[in-house]
Amino acid sequence: MATDSKDPKKKYGDKLRVAKSEFLSMNGGDGTYSYSKNSNHQMIAANTVKGKIDQEIVNNLDVKHLSSLSNTISIADLGCSTGPNTFIAMQNILEAIQLKYHCQCPNSKPLDFQIFFNDRPSNDFNTLFNSIPKDCGYFVAGVPGSFYSQLFPESSLHFVHTCHALHWLSKLPEELLNKDSPAWNKGNIYYLNAPREVYNAYASQFYEDIDDFLSVRAKEIVAGGMMVIIMAGSPNGVPSHSNFSSFGTTFDLMGSSLMEMAKEGLISEELVDSFNIPIYAASPEEMIGLVERNGYFSIERIEFVKSTLEGTVAEASVRMKHSRAGMEGMLSKHFGSETIDEIFERLGKKLIEHSELLASRIKESGQLFLVLKRK
Amino acid sequence: MATDSKDPKKKYGDKLRVAKSEFLSMNGGDGTYSYSKNSNHQMIAANTVKGKIDQEIVNNLDVKHLSSLSNTISIADLGCSTGPNTFIAMQNILEAIQLKYHCQCPNSKPLDFQIFFNDRPSNDFNTLFNSIPKDCGYFVAGVPGSFYSQLFPESSLHFVHTCHALHWLSKLPEELLNKDSPAWNKGNIYYLNAPREVYNAYASQFYEDIDDFLSVRAKEIVAGGMMVIIMAGSPNGVPSHSNFSSFGTTFDLMGSSLMEMAKEGLISEELVDSFNIPIYAASPEEMIGLVERNGYFSIERIEFVKSTLEGTVAEASVRMKHSRAGMEGMLSKHFGSETIDEIFERLGKKLIEHSELLASRIKESGQLFLVLKRK
Repeated sequence: MATDSKDPKKKYGDKLRVAKSEFLSMNGGDGTYSYSKNSNHQMIAANTVKGKIDQEIVNNLDVKHLSSLSNTISIADLGCSTGPNTFIAMQNILEAIQLKYHCQCPNSKPLDFQIFFNDRPSNDFNTLFNSIPKDCGYFVAGVPGSFYSQLFPESSLHFVHTCHALHWLSKLPEELLNKDSPAWNKGNIYYLNAPREVYNAYASQFYEDIDDFLSVRAKEIVAGGMMVIIMAGSPNGVPSHSNFSSFGTTFDLMGSSLMEMAKEGLISEELVDSFNIPIYAASPEEMIGLVERNGYFSIERIEFVKSTLEGTVAEASVRMKHSRAGMEGMLSKHFGSETIDEIFERLGKKLIEHSELLASRIKESGQLFLVLKRK
Repeated sequence: MATDSKDPKKKYGDKLRVAKSEFLSMNGGDGTYSYSKNSNHQMIAANTVKGKIDQEIVNNLDVKHLSSLSNTISIADLGCSTGPNTFIAMQNILEAIQLKYHCQCPNSKPLDFQIFFNDRPSNDFNTLFNSIPKDCGYFVAGVPGSFYSQLFPESSLHFVHTCHALHWLSKLPEELLNKDSPAWNKGNIYYLNAPREVYNAYASQFYEDIDDFLSVRAKEIVAGGMMVIIMAGSPNGVPSHSNFSSFGTTFDLMGSSLMEMAKEGLISEELVDSFNIPIYAASPEEMIGLVERNGYFSIERIEFVKSTLEGTVAEASVRMKHSRAGMEGMLSKHFGSETIDEIFERLGKKLIEHSELLASRIKESGQLFLVLKRK
């Protein structure tokens, strides 16, 4: 891979491709517990920001300039999973860019679009490729790989979108598994309810990951190109290590289920101690600090968007299926596939028991919405 | 999709995406009858032309000019299947282009490479993506779709490779299934041993397909870009409709197996009548005529390369597995998966019975090798 001699941060690139460990992906296929059938939570959450994305494209993206560089606008969706959410998001972005182009360049040749769908190699690309809408009006490509490494040639992308993916760490901090470390996360599977050192280990890893992510994207995105990030987050003013939100509560209940199973001898306690969910929910203030320290992007917009989840998505059984679609692979690999039904049955019961608590935490929860522009 | 106003052939594009019927792909995964485990026939055949491809790149590809357009060289492998052959071919091409670049531009910044792996959406891209060599040194993308439609933005490719794919027709000529047509292919599954009208229907479809293929590639490939085509073929002077070669012989024996099974009442004779293998083996003369009539490409090299298959690849059991890797999907869809073991058991026996005939036909058989350049 060629290195950019103008790039001050040469530490990225090939190294990352190898160094980053590989987590498992969302459930593939289209069965009962598949991501494709259990992602309306994410769809509703994404819909709440659709208008904001349109607005930023219309007000803030210089499509005339981008189209002067190339008649094909290249868009990437990072962490796209298997659909259908990615297709809806890409269609919305494509239409907003077309609209802006028609305003800026009323009588010009129509733009072409090439859309790159990225996820880890373990993602079910077969299901993704067989679900692409007919006559979608864009050229399709799938890109397997971790988005913490460089995935695209230099200055080859005009727009990047990533939804509900960037809160996944590239790897688990090693000290969480070290019995001699104060960050050993015994009896917990997450940083909530854990020693402060556990939270600090998660935060350090997240800060490093975001810096890596922004630096490799800076190589790929042309000057003036835009990046929209939607991710799990915490509001300002509530310390991240005590922000339970809705998924924090779910993780907490899953942790109790696993500890119960360990006490009953169904799984080993050591296995629970060594299991940690690699997700971090940052606040807007933290993200501002990270983007500014990295230096390659300007922040055009950043918000903590309150959850609009209600009705069926807040129901325990739906919540259980969503959790299973997202986490079955990881749990199955760690605890063995024979334990999966039991784990989710217990989680389901606990979600029903604590449905009032969950409902109130859903009201407080939300997501981060960032719009960045390559300087 | 934007249309190119300078392009005289506006009949292509979106229309093709819909009109072309979808054949099934090679067997996925990595099991006993998978393409990835049963493609050394294709590997040996491809190896015989490796040196010729290197030679054409070194003598005939102006990498200096191409790199002045973009620092990233974009290569596509059309009909790549699941590997490993595609990775070997792409690595060879990449190295030959790098070599030429170092000769032409000794002190320049190294080139980046982006390689697009294309096959039909039914191809097993999951197996492909999980087999990509570590530290491959290029950016990877998978492109699902028929190569008879436009798959890439205008002028976005520098080099196209397609190996053992272009002899597959885009669809079966309808008249083969029409009882009132003289081209009704009753009692046969191929054009060998069939009425002349059957052969003519195959040939017409093939001529139309090649014109479509060249026209859409002409949009995608930059001026001066190169295309290497390796495909089943017949030598000049032997009429295509009577050129049995090695795979023609295999198809012939498969046809007898199916007719036998129909006579024994294991499958319906109507099903055999309506089954036709959508492959055409053109001669160099035919291809020269088609490329010249299309007009977008110059022919830099065209040869009928004699087969070098020998040893294990000529053995009946190996031949049977190769046939199964390539044709199980199609046969299974048409006759039902419960018939597959029986079909290939009978084919295996016939291949042993006729092993001398097969060996002599392997000696006469070969493949077409074409190098084209975008004018």
